[in-house]
Amino acid sequence: MTTTLAAGADLFERHREKLDKAREAIRTRAYYSAFPESPSGRIYGETAAADGKAAFDARLAKPFALEQPSSGEAAASERSPYGIALGVRYPAADVDALLAAARTAGEAWGAASVETRTGVALEALARLNARSFEIGHAVMHTTGQAFVMAFQAGGPHAQDRALEAVAYAYDEMSRVPASVVWEKPAKPEPLRVKKTYAIVPRGIDLTIGCSTFPTWNAYPGIFASLVTGNAVIVKPHPQAVLPLAITVEILQGVLRESGFDPKIVQLAVDTAEKPLAKVLAQRPEIALIDYTGSTEFGDWIEQNSRALVYTEKAGVNSVVIDSTGDVKGMIRNLAMSLSLYSGQMCTTPQNLFVPQDGITAGDERLTFDEVVAALVKGIDGLLGDPERAAGVLGAIATDGTLRRIDEENAKPGVVRASAPLTNPEFPDARVRSPLVAVVDAADRERYDREAFGPIAFVVRTADTDESLRLATSEAQRRGAITAIVYSTSEDVLAKAERWARDGKVNLAVNLTGSLLVNQSAAFSDYHVTGGNPAGNASLTDAAFVANRFRIVETRTPVA
Amino acid sequence: MTTTLAAGADLFERHREKLDKAREAIRTRAYYSAFPESPSGRIYGETAAADGKAAFDARLAKPFALEQPSSGEAAASERSPYGIALGVRYPAADVDALLAAARTAGEAWGAASVETRTGVALEALARLNARSFEIGHAVMHTTGQAFVMAFQAGGPHAQDRALEAVAYAYDEMSRVPASVVWEKPAKPEPLRVKKTYAIVPRGIDLTIGCSTFPTWNAYPGIFASLVTGNAVIVKPHPQAVLPLAITVEILQGVLRESGFDPKIVQLAVDTAEKPLAKVLAQRPEIALIDYTGSTEFGDWIEQNSRALVYTEKAGVNSVVIDSTGDVKGMIRNLAMSLSLYSGQMCTTPQNLFVPQDGITAGDERLTFDEVVAALVKGIDGLLGDPERAAGVLGAIATDGTLRRIDEENAKPGVVRASAPLTNPEFPDARVRSPLVAVVDAADRERYDREAFGPIAFVVRTADTDESLRLATSEAQRRGAITAIVYSTSEDVLAKAERWARDGKVNLAVNLTGSLLVNQSAAFSDYHVTGGNPAGNASLTDAAFVANRFRIVETRTPVA
Repeated sequence: MTTTLAAGADLFERHREKLDKAREAIRTRAYYSAFPESPSGRIYGETAAADGKAAFDARLAKPFALEQPSSGEAAASERSPYGIALGVRYPAADVDALLAAARTAGEAWGAASVETRTGVALEALARLNARSFEIGHAVMHTTGQAFVMAFQAGGPHAQDRALEAVAYAYDEMSRVPASVVWEKPAKPEPLRVKKTYAIVPRGIDLTIGCSTFPTWNAYPGIFASLVTGNAVIVKPHPQAVLPLAITVEILQGVLRESGFDPKIVQLAVDTAEKPLAKVLAQRPEIALIDYTGSTEFGDWIEQNSRALVYTEKAGVNSVVIDSTGDVKGMIRNLAMSLSLYSGQMCTTPQNLFVPQDGITAGDERLTFDEVVAALVKGIDGLLGDPERAAGVLGAIATDGTLRRIDEENAKPGVVRASAPLTNPEFPDARVRSPLVAVVDAADRERYDREAFGPIAFVVRTADTDESLRLATSEAQRRGAITAIVYSTSEDVLAKAERWARDGKVNLAVNLTGSLLVNQSAAFSDYHVTGGNPAGNASLTDAAFVANRFRIVETRTPVA
Repeated sequence: MTTTLAAGADLFERHREKLDKAREAIRTRAYYSAFPESPSGRIYGETAAADGKAAFDARLAKPFALEQPSSGEAAASERSPYGIALGVRYPAADVDALLAAARTAGEAWGAASVETRTGVALEALARLNARSFEIGHAVMHTTGQAFVMAFQAGGPHAQDRALEAVAYAYDEMSRVPASVVWEKPAKPEPLRVKKTYAIVPRGIDLTIGCSTFPTWNAYPGIFASLVTGNAVIVKPHPQAVLPLAITVEILQGVLRESGFDPKIVQLAVDTAEKPLAKVLAQRPEIALIDYTGSTEFGDWIEQNSRALVYTEKAGVNSVVIDSTGDVKGMIRNLAMSLSLYSGQMCTTPQNLFVPQDGITAGDERLTFDEVVAALVKGIDGLLGDPERAAGVLGAIATDGTLRRIDEENAKPGVVRASAPLTNPEFPDARVRSPLVAVVDAADRERYDREAFGPIAFVVRTADTDESLRLATSEAQRRGAITAIVYSTSEDVLAKAERWARDGKVNLAVNLTGSLLVNQSAAFSDYHVTGGNPAGNASLTDAAFVANRFRIVETRTPVA
């Protein structure tokens, strides 16, 4: 194998400034972004957009080549929610061969220096960034995200999240000195012992991707495991393979050019008919699992795998509306949060708790019905223009979500039905507007479970205390990733902090401007607390990285 | 409740220097000890030894009072390996009531500041230190350790290990700022968001103690969980309750005097006939488990509990003897390692791999039989004086170990039988000298499993390569906590590093002086790597503490 790239340690120096800025941002939790989120030609180059689109188009209806063992060619399983044919065919996964290759390839990787591995990861991130347009189209046409979101969340934001994980892992590893001479006072002379501390990997990481944010959710685990010395097998969702296939291709390229076996990172493609996640999760060679997906399967993995498991599952996110000084801002903010990517974000609010007697809004009172009407009007207004609607809503990723929408549309209490919309650019795109239903607090079986997709319930409660109680209980039992409270009362805000604390859910307060609860910023916001049923891990904290490696010590007395 | 003690935050300031020194020692892994290991009157006070002994004596044959719910008085289950009657009766555990009390008491504790909790923990350590003599006698008469070891390992060394865990946990928590204003560049003006980050506990920790080092092994988990805000239920081994009962009593005292509910820490005493560990481990209220004990039960907990589980189980520790420049030093060191506390340390070597053609020792060659003879002679010499023998060997903790010794004594290849010895001070003490047996490498079923107690095998191998291969495989399959290599060859030492790395076991090189492989120093040595079957966690690294708390974030846009 020819080494055409600088060695890993040189790559480390090349990208060191970015790493150090990331580490500093984590410490201060200040704003930082290493990868520009604006897809302008000024930043990415005049031809970057067109080149990226062309690169994506060139992928379609072809086999996708990776350097890894395979038992042939898998059937194309991806279908664009925008209605265009993808037809990319991936290497079919041969589990035994993939694991054996990961183990062999992982030897030299685990023995490489922390700086070398970190350098390779940082170079891969730089290359991923340069490919953000291609990846953006791949994300768009597998997840149904509108292009701008697919570019941002699937490209630079995912890269920032990956850099964050790399910075955390680097911090934890570099906190352990490579070698010291330990000297214990004694008579007639001190006891001197040379001690070395080697960072060794756990083994092989299995990263299981999801159908909605294939890169954003998978990168932290992939990159944290890589820099801590583990080989990685990426098992994408069968509906969202391409973004991760491109990612693996880029990682393999950097590894190869740095003199490593590219099979340190491999792709395990499966199909809905013949899933591989359970098979892989139960293999003893798998030491770490990073999982994003349904609660049901995440629970199964947590209970049945012997690996260290990091999960982000689903939850029921709540909004408690008590009072506001800016009803227009509140409605605008909520309408956008509910509509963005058709509610297919794990951070989208589902249940909006409103007291039956209505709320105080500035100097006036709004009845319960007026709050509901304002919300419906807000959504209608946001989606009035078809082009803007297409850019906000994207398309529906899975058949399951379409079915769920149809079922909910037929139930009582629907005040805004979900309706098909036409995407001017993609006539076959499956676009649905948000559904809003009014339910009573007692109607638990209707709203007290996850209804994934563009489905929101306005829950009529006795008062804000009941709203908070229900929201807390939901977070504790069903899990929750986000929470919002609207209130002008210090007392209610204090109670909402209690909701956040007891439900172990991150809280947003009085969002009326451009900040959406759906968004979380790398280096500053923790995504998922890891403390309720929505997931056992957080992106990213020290716990997410510190157990991916072990320390092996050698003691040698010094004469 | 009267607050007679300074508030936790004041306690933090009072003990801050100790904490800062511990944090610095962890960073540099330099020698540090906060609690003097020498039981001299100059340090602990002229009357400390006598007072501690009297305090211990006053415990005997009495009920032990703690502030916690109980279903009556448990039968006295402890029996001193030195033959004296203990007869201490503890509150019988009422699992439901203990868990409910832990939950209630934990509320205010979890909401207290990091500094307050850390201050309480540090004050408790200072008080534990002042009670080291009493605890030393309690450890001695439950575990069978000789007094000096019981004092050191059960007192100051355990306290240092606890301080280490506190320092790690404090480091991890204090790395998260309490509050920042995050400012993202935007037009016409930046987006400003006030973010707060609250440290919240996981829930209730269950610490399951062992019969040999009840305090040393339990303190890191107890103290790490406490300072991260969790309530703790301590379930001691039925044979080693008293040291942990005294510990809980002291912790409860500091908590009470600081204005907290003492039931933040409780003791769950069970009996061999009616064990509680499985019951507790499967309760959903238990969020964290710290376990030290048998591999079999540790495996069961890892597989069956939904809690986050930290285990230290058992392993088979190996010595690879290839060559040495100091055969006398090597034999002296090994004889002491094998004899200390009758091999009842999880760090005691069990298998000594020696090539069939013997070894080079300085300018001469020693045959295999000469190595064996030297080892036997070394042990005989060490234990020749009854008083010194009693101080080194201590007594046998459990009936199971006595049985194992008898069985092994009857097997072929025994070159030094384990024999009863008389302890001049305690005529009824059950003292046994180390057994040495010679076995062939092929005789796997004899030596390739844990033989806990004073039982060592000299394994005849083809050559050092085979020795290293067998030792590596053993560490990978059976687990290992310590490893030693003796060699004057750089090549062999490099291969031994590979053994350590592949077996994920900490290695000692050419120990010929006073440093024993059995010992590990707080702040500098990692005890257990957490990477082989001997345990999934290490005392102490960041991974041991970072997941005991979660971070809950609140975002509030700033106008």
